Amino acid sequence: MQEMPENPQPQRRVVGLADPAGGVLVGALSADGNEVSVLAGLEEFWGDPAHYLALEPTGSALPASEVTFVPPVLPGARVICIGLNYLKHVAEGSYAGDGVPPYPTLFARWPASLSVGGAGIPVPVDEDGLDWEGEVVAYVGATLVDASPEDALAAVVGYSTFNDVTSRRAQKLTSQWILGKNGDSSGPLGPIVPASEVGDLRDGLRVLTRVNGETVQEGRTDEMVYTVGDTLSLISRTFTLRPGDLLATGTPSGVGYSRTPPWLLQPGDTVEVEVERLGTLTNHVVDGSARHA
Amino acid sequence: MQEMPENPQPQRRVVGLADPAGGVLVGALSADGNEVSVLAGLEEFWGDPAHYLALEPTGSALPASEVTFVPPVLPGARVICIGLNYLKHVAEGSYAGDGVPPYPTLFARWPASLSVGGAGIPVPVDEDGLDWEGEVVAYVGATLVDASPEDALAAVVGYSTFNDVTSRRAQKLTSQWILGKNGDSSGPLGPIVPASEVGDLRDGLRVLTRVNGETVQEGRTDEMVYTVGDTLSLISRTFTLRPGDLLATGTPSGVGYSRTPPWLLQPGDTVEVEVERLGTLTNHVVDGSARHA
Repeated sequence: MQEMPENPQPQRRVVGLADPAGGVLVGALSADGNEVSVLAGLEEFWGDPAHYLALEPTGSALPASEVTFVPPVLPGARVICIGLNYLKHVAEGSYAGDGVPPYPTLFARWPASLSVGGAGIPVPVDEDGLDWEGEVVAYVGATLVDASPEDALAAVVGYSTFNDVTSRRAQKLTSQWILGKNGDSSGPLGPIVPASEVGDLRDGLRVLTRVNGETVQEGRTDEMVYTVGDTLSLISRTFTLRPGDLLATGTPSGVGYSRTPPWLLQPGDTVEVEVERLGTLTNHVVDGSARHA
Repeated sequence: MQEMPENPQPQRRVVGLADPAGGVLVGALSADGNEVSVLAGLEEFWGDPAHYLALEPTGSALPASEVTFVPPVLPGARVICIGLNYLKHVAEGSYAGDGVPPYPTLFARWPASLSVGGAGIPVPVDEDGLDWEGEVVAYVGATLVDASPEDALAAVVGYSTFNDVTSRRAQKLTSQWILGKNGDSSGPLGPIVPASEVGDLRDGLRVLTRVNGETVQEGRTDEMVYTVGDTLSLISRTFTLRPGDLLATGTPSGVGYSRTPPWLLQPGDTVEVEVERLGTLTNHVVDGSARHA
């Protein structure tokens, strides 16, 4: 099992939690991960995310064991995903013959598909298994209209680990991918780490994906074809980005479906995404009958 | 100008309105459209949509002139759109050489792209204009997991007019369409008409789109390749459909970009979508500078 020995826990990890009174709260994890201190309600947080990401919590801390974690994502946020953003991933998949796309290939997730670390991800009834796609997500913290790449990058307030778990059969049914990209609980997100702690993805953060302990993807974020700033700038020329919108930056090579023979996640498998400076996101795969529970 | 002489106003038209206290309310329009009677809050409405769609309002009515109309759509709803669902539209576009797709071609809108009748739709800075796509939207009223086509159709509680206004350059930048399908205010929806009043789209409702009074699209909903029931059934085998999710059923032939010469909507143009039993949805196009307002 490949580890990153020099990957210390981020100082600040911000998570979502179900408010027992209804709705979603945003809180900070303690260094050992055993406690959560509430920072704000979800809407309040995204009203001034830079402030709350830096805020030292003052209230009492809740034991993590008593908290239901949920994504710290507004229901109306856009989860914009870049496909084909690492050259070696372009070369391994169905689009290999087309070369590098001249613009970032953008597809959509609805927030309803998101989940968190620890969540079980069910295999839909028509799939032979699920595929992994370890990656990094950037969180937009400001309104962006026709923004320059520099302004767009400056508006990013945080990053987290992400696994863009994919139903390949559904994804490849037609020319458009979104059915296979929105399976139940198929988009686990790690905690948000403030951009100030992460630096610039162009510096090259290591991204690893492991299945049952075996490393299956290994890349560096400086291998991306399209940067976060350039991509958000392009998007903002068609639609207005809002605080709380997410950009998933694409996955390195090593996905399962393009292997010989193909390798897909089965119920009982554990999948981990580890990213330098962001931590490790762990999920397991469950039988499709969980969708009927 | 082509009209539908035998297209009486639906008896029941359900709309969203901004609650001055925050949030969204759902109400019923009076027969003349001059008043709105509140039925429920948005979450309450989608908790039991069949009940509220049939409910006779008892409270006092608000003058429509004092109301800010908004889509009666949950922020976390999925707006699932079928592309290439009318044979003559398949034959006119970029995918003509590929024949009829073997499954419904599904793409995504986020609810943030939705608007209402009367809204101005801005032309993004990189576009030469906007294209029209008149169609019918179906609203899901129940939870669907691995549902049969019959159960999925039975879960549809209402329909409305829809204009899937498209930024063609952004749509065609790469293989995936979603950037050009999510422009600001680019998805106007008409009022919801209860399914009990609409009947079955397979009966063949006329769909007309007019630009500045000239008819540019004319089709019938019985020309659809993939029915509402079959498509929702397929989707439910990958992800769980929830009350408030929307299915946009695709547009007939006659869009602007595939004409010779191409014809795109310009600021000042008026575009109308009229559907039998659902009414007429009217919008106008505005300059992209409106995005900076």
